[in-house]
This record gives sequence, C-alpha cells and structure tokens, in this order.
Amino acid sequence: MTLINLGKKAKDSTKFLAYASTKDKNEALNKMAQSLLDHKEQILKANQKDTAAAADNGIAETMLDRLTLTDERITAMADGLRDIALLSDPIGLVKHMWTNEAGLRIGQQTVPLGVIGIIYESRPNVTSDAAGLCFKSGNVVILRGGKEAFHSNKAIVEVLQKGLESTTFQKEVIQLVEDTSRETARKMMQLNRYLDVLIPRGGANLIKKVVENATVPVIETGTGNCHVYIDQSAELEMSKDIIVNAKTSRPSVCNAAETLLIHERVAEDFLPVIEQALAEWNVELRADEAAQAIFTQSVPATEKDWETEFLDYILAVKVVSSIDEAIAHINHYSTGHSEAIVTSDYSASQRFHKEVDSAAVYINASTRFTDGFEFGFGAEIGISTQKLHARGPMGLPELTSTKYIVFGEGQIR
Amino acid sequence: MTLINLGKKAKDSTKFLAYASTKDKNEALNKMAQSLLDHKEQILKANQKDTAAAADNGIAETMLDRLTLTDERITAMADGLRDIALLSDPIGLVKHMWTNEAGLRIGQQTVPLGVIGIIYESRPNVTSDAAGLCFKSGNVVILRGGKEAFHSNKAIVEVLQKGLESTTFQKEVIQLVEDTSRETARKMMQLNRYLDVLIPRGGANLIKKVVENATVPVIETGTGNCHVYIDQSAELEMSKDIIVNAKTSRPSVCNAAETLLIHERVAEDFLPVIEQALAEWNVELRADEAAQAIFTQSVPATEKDWETEFLDYILAVKVVSSIDEAIAHINHYSTGHSEAIVTSDYSASQRFHKEVDSAAVYINASTRFTDGFEFGFGAEIGISTQKLHARGPMGLPELTSTKYIVFGEGQIR
Repeated sequence: MTLINLGKKAKDSTKFLAYASTKDKNEALNKMAQSLLDHKEQILKANQKDTAAAADNGIAETMLDRLTLTDERITAMADGLRDIALLSDPIGLVKHMWTNEAGLRIGQQTVPLGVIGIIYESRPNVTSDAAGLCFKSGNVVILRGGKEAFHSNKAIVEVLQKGLESTTFQKEVIQLVEDTSRETARKMMQLNRYLDVLIPRGGANLIKKVVENATVPVIETGTGNCHVYIDQSAELEMSKDIIVNAKTSRPSVCNAAETLLIHERVAEDFLPVIEQALAEWNVELRADEAAQAIFTQSVPATEKDWETEFLDYILAVKVVSSIDEAIAHINHYSTGHSEAIVTSDYSASQRFHKEVDSAAVYINASTRFTDGFEFGFGAEIGISTQKLHARGPMGLPELTSTKYIVFGEGQIR
Repeated sequence: MTLINLGKKAKDSTKFLAYASTKDKNEALNKMAQSLLDHKEQILKANQKDTAAAADNGIAETMLDRLTLTDERITAMADGLRDIALLSDPIGLVKHMWTNEAGLRIGQQTVPLGVIGIIYESRPNVTSDAAGLCFKSGNVVILRGGKEAFHSNKAIVEVLQKGLESTTFQKEVIQLVEDTSRETARKMMQLNRYLDVLIPRGGANLIKKVVENATVPVIETGTGNCHVYIDQSAELEMSKDIIVNAKTSRPSVCNAAETLLIHERVAEDFLPVIEQALAEWNVELRADEAAQAIFTQSVPATEKDWETEFLDYILAVKVVSSIDEAIAHINHYSTGHSEAIVTSDYSASQRFHKEVDSAAVYINASTRFTDGFEFGFGAEIGISTQKLHARGPMGLPELTSTKYIVFGEGQIR
C-alpha cells in the first residue's frame, strides 16, 4: 500500500475510534493482548528472521538484545496493553466550562489528536506499546519501525489487527508502513494532509533528522544531557548516593546523568569519596583542571564532553565557584531534559528550580525519576524535550487535543 | 544586526524576563503604553512613509486602511498594553502537584516558552499587541512584519524599547527583524537554536509558506472555512439571524461563515427567507443544484467553492439530506476553525458537537464568537487551527510551557 493510501485509510478511520466508548476501547485492548499471547509462535518466528539477519550483519550485542523478543517479552507486551486498558480514558473530559458575557456556555473538552505517526528504531515492543497508547487515547496510529525489526513489527501489527477482528473497530486504526526506505520515511514526515503529529522515538540522529525534515508537527523526545549539581551546603552521603544512582543505575537511558557540577568549597572533601564509589562501576571521569587535581584517576574534559549524552559509564566533572556558574553551565549545555541539585540551603533550592530551564528539575533526588511510570502516569509514550504541547514524560493526556464546545440559544455578535 | 546575532541576544535576555515579578512586568507594560502616547508624532510620521509608498504602488483600499495609523489607533494600542497589564500573570502557576510512590512531591508549573517569533503582514498594531502579550507571559519576542509596514513597525518597536529604558528590562526582549527579505524570513523559520516557537499571523499563503518551510515548531493560525448547518428541526428566525450574522457582520475575518448547509426538509421554506435577508448585504450565493432550484438568484457552486475561505460577501450553499451528510461535508472541507448547527433537536446537537472535528463547535450561536475577547480571555495572540499545543483562540496561557519541579529528600531509584 502506498503511503498516501495508508494515510487516507488512517484518516478515514479516525471517526470510528474518536467517538468509541471507553468500554469498547478497553475490551479491544484486552483482545489485542490476548491475541499477542495466542500468537507468540508467529511473532517469535518473525523475530528470528530479524535477529538472524542482524547477527549476519555483525550488529552490536546491545543492539541485538534490544531487537530480540522472548516468550517473557511478549507476555510483558500483552500485560502492557492490559495495563493501558485499566488507565482512565483521557478523551471527553471538559477541563473547564464557563459562561461568557453573551450568555454562551463554553467548555474546553479533550479530543484525540487524530492520526499519530511514530517513527522508531529497533525495539519491537514499541510497536505494541505505542499502538496501545494511541488506541486508548482515540488516535489512529501509523507506525514506521526500523528496517532491522521489520518482520517482528509486521507480525506484531498483524496479530494486534487480528485481535480487533471480533470488535467493531476497523483494522486500519493500527497500521504499519511496510516500506522501510529512507525515502518513504521522509515522505511520511511531510504527510501533513493525513498526519496530525509525528513522534520520533530513538537516538539523537533519528530525532534530528525528523526535526529537520518534518513539516508535520513534531513532538521531540528523548535526548538527555542531564546534570547533577552538588551545592556547597550538600550532605556528602546524599550527594554520593544521588550521583552514583543517576550515573550508574542504567547509563543507556535518557534520564541518566552525564555531567557532575560541584561547588569548589566541597570539591576536595566530596570528590575522592565520589571517585571511589564510581570506581566500583568503572566509570570513566572526564574532568576539568580543578577536578583533575583532586581525582586520582581521570582524563581532561574537552568542550565536546560538556555537550555529549554519553549513554555509557562516563561522567564529565566540573568544579564551579557558585550556583550561578552551575545554572549558567546547565542552561548552556543541557538538552533540557532533567537536572538535579543536592543542597540543604533553602535559597539555593529555590533559585535552582526557578532558573534551570529543563523539563524536570530535581531538588535532592536522582534524575532517573523522569519517567511516566515513576511519575505515576501509568504509561509513557516518550519524554518531550520541547516546550510546545508537552514537556517531560508524556502519558495519555499528552496524546490529546481539545475543542471548544459552545452552547447557545441563538446568540449573534 | 544579523538574524543570528539577534537570536543570540534574544535567547540571552530570556532569563531576565522569565523570572521577572508580575509587578515589574505590569509597570513596564504601562510605561510602554505611555511611551506610545508620548511619541505619537514619531509613529505617525513613520507610518506616513509606509502609506505614501503603498499609495504609489497602487495598493488596494482595504489594504491601505489596514496599514494606516491614526491618533485614535495609537491610543487603542496603548490601551491594549494597559489591558494586558490588568490580566493575571500566566507564569509560575502550579497546575497540579502530587506525591509519587517514592515520596517525591512533583508539581507541574507554567513557565514561558522562551523566544517567540511572530511573522505577520500589514497591520502595524500587531507589533504592539504581540509584543505586549509575549512580554506579559515572560517571553522574548522577535517580530518580523511585512515590508509595506516596515517604517511603522520600526518606529513602534523603538518607542516600546524607549518605554523600557527606565525599567530593569533589557530592550532586547522586544526585537524587530529589520531585513524584510524573503531570504531572511526563511532563515528565521529555521532558527531552531534561538527560537522556541513561531506564530504566523496573516493570510492563507503566508501560513502555508511558514508551515512548509519552518523547522522551528509552529502554531498555525487563522484560516477559517467556517460552516453553518441548519437542521430540519431548526427555527426559521434563529436560522436566519445566525447565518446573516455569521456571513455579513464582518466578512473579512476568519470566523465568518463561508458555507451554509441546510436540511432538505426545511430548504424550501427557509432558503427564500434567507436569500431575502442576505440580499440586503448583496451577498452572492453559490449554490448546488437543489438550492439553485429554490433561490431566485444564484450561481452554480463549483468544487472549489466548498473549500474556499471567501472573506467576502459570498456564500456557498448546499442542501443535504441528513445530519450525517452535513457532518461529513464539514469534516471533509473545513479548515477546522468554527462550525455551527442550528437545531432544536437534542440528539442532533449532541452528534454535531461530538462528531465535528473543529476548534470551536457551536450549537445555536454564530461562528463569529470564536475570539479571545468574546471567549473572555481578555487577549488574543491568534486562533490556532492545529491540534498540537493550542486549539482555538489563544490567550496568555497558550503562550506558556510547563516544567516539572520535583522536591525530594535524597530519593534514588
């Protein structure tokens, strides 16, 4: 099917999903979950094609792991859909309603965005997660996964559509772009007539490409050059725990810390303790001159290190002379994802949360909490690092738009 | 100043405006208003250069009127700034705050978007309105007005900046792009490093160009192919009043009606009355076959008429056999701005407001109410016809983003 036809079918089917009852949507989500469980073999077989090809191409071990599906991972996908069914429906809520001077009753009501395009990379479980979240929020989804996961994604979409067969929903509410060429991806980024929004999920390169080429409105997600600043008033133990957790609990994710800033008054006391704690995880320290003079083992930090999302056991370290310098450094180099201060000083905490311009600003907690599940949303379609529409972890409410409903008795202006 | 330098200065000055107190912002708005009143001569003189050049170029009378400033219009601009000072500050509101499982207190707080670019056409009063709204919402603004209003815009910005001189605010919080070439406009649309959002204000062509060329996130505004549907249960008098008001009270604006849809059961009774009422305004009727058979004077409607925003005393008219046909026609041809149903039937009213996919959906009222002032927002930066971020009339809250502020006691994950 050409992309235009696919877009047309998607657009045509929005109306069936947009006004569906919560009950019907939840039943369908549970049927899709059951279908995943019923067709594990089919999915695993397709996934083996992908992993075999990937192994032949000498793909990196971590990439192969992301690509691989197992019995348990498919069960987790099904559980994910059931969990989405349990979340409250974000559609049809009237956020506020008032009467204007002319006596019109005006309400602002949540509605689906319409058709959402998701462009993503190698994890096949995104296929089912994204489909479930879009479905629950009344949105038709067009999925365009990575080439290397094509057979897996195709099987998952077929199985989800099979789950819809015994429902009133058309299978076109969940569609996969089968042509994984770059040319088609670029066309999808400019499919304004049929796509209401595009959400890229993946590495910095993918996101950059989408932002640069898309004419469809984009929600930028993901890149996290996150900072922890240890203030002069910070407690040593808390500082150590937070930086170790933020750096090492899962270095490959976007909410992991990449740079440690530390006030000069505590640098000499704290850095040796922090170095020792991070040594257990073999964290490479890339330090400015002042920090290098304190560390027993480190390499000099370059300008590039301050702006890099390492996604690895690497930490850039800089000694600063004031909270002003720390905030200026963060606002200059950060990607606007998550930043933390460790402090026991009231005024420092206030200044940090007021002046740091990022999606999530922490006082005395690890940046690793920036996550839809940790925040208590029960779901996450991604973490927005832009300021328009949504910022920070996005759950179901972020997949909605609004419309004004206006009730009159013949008013004219 | 090059666009890059201008962007850099804008970005650098965001921090001074973002954390400013409401009191300081309001005082500055009042000083800018006073500066407009104090420098009327300077503005009028600059405006005469623009209007003289426009007259030489044989510009249309309505365009010339839009371009012309008078003593009263400058007073109105000053009053506008004072009114903005009276509105409540949209920045720093915590929309909700909760405690997550780990015991973190998480709040979602409004913050400015950062730097807003406005690309607009000939009305010089947009310069002062947009500057005031961006200022109050803590946003730095880069204004790029039309070539034909260049001298007026330059004078207004200089006068506003003069008003800031006795305040703590830098003049760079309000800047004008002095190079009005298309090349520079295109560069501005891709100034992602310094611009957080771009709002085009003007005709369909301008908006199309911005949507197609911008890599900066855009809020699409304005185009309104609005519909009024007269249901079979509608009252004749109300139907006539609403369509006459929606079409003729100000045909050149985006919330004016362009197409009338009418149920076949009432067409024969209602259309002659409506024709007579519209004849007083010399409205040209472009009708489908069924309506032509009823009207005494009309021309055949073409496919193009259904999709055109006439902005003139022209109305397309179509007879439909059901509410389904009306809704389908609207969702196909509408630009998603404003639509109205006239009905006395409960179920028809429910279906219309549920199924019509536009920013504002009216039951028994004129589409002309879609306006920030009419809605009671006290301000309007434009009317969004996109679904992302804002939809419908945009006031001060739509010029904000949010950030999550997270208070912990050493929590790690």
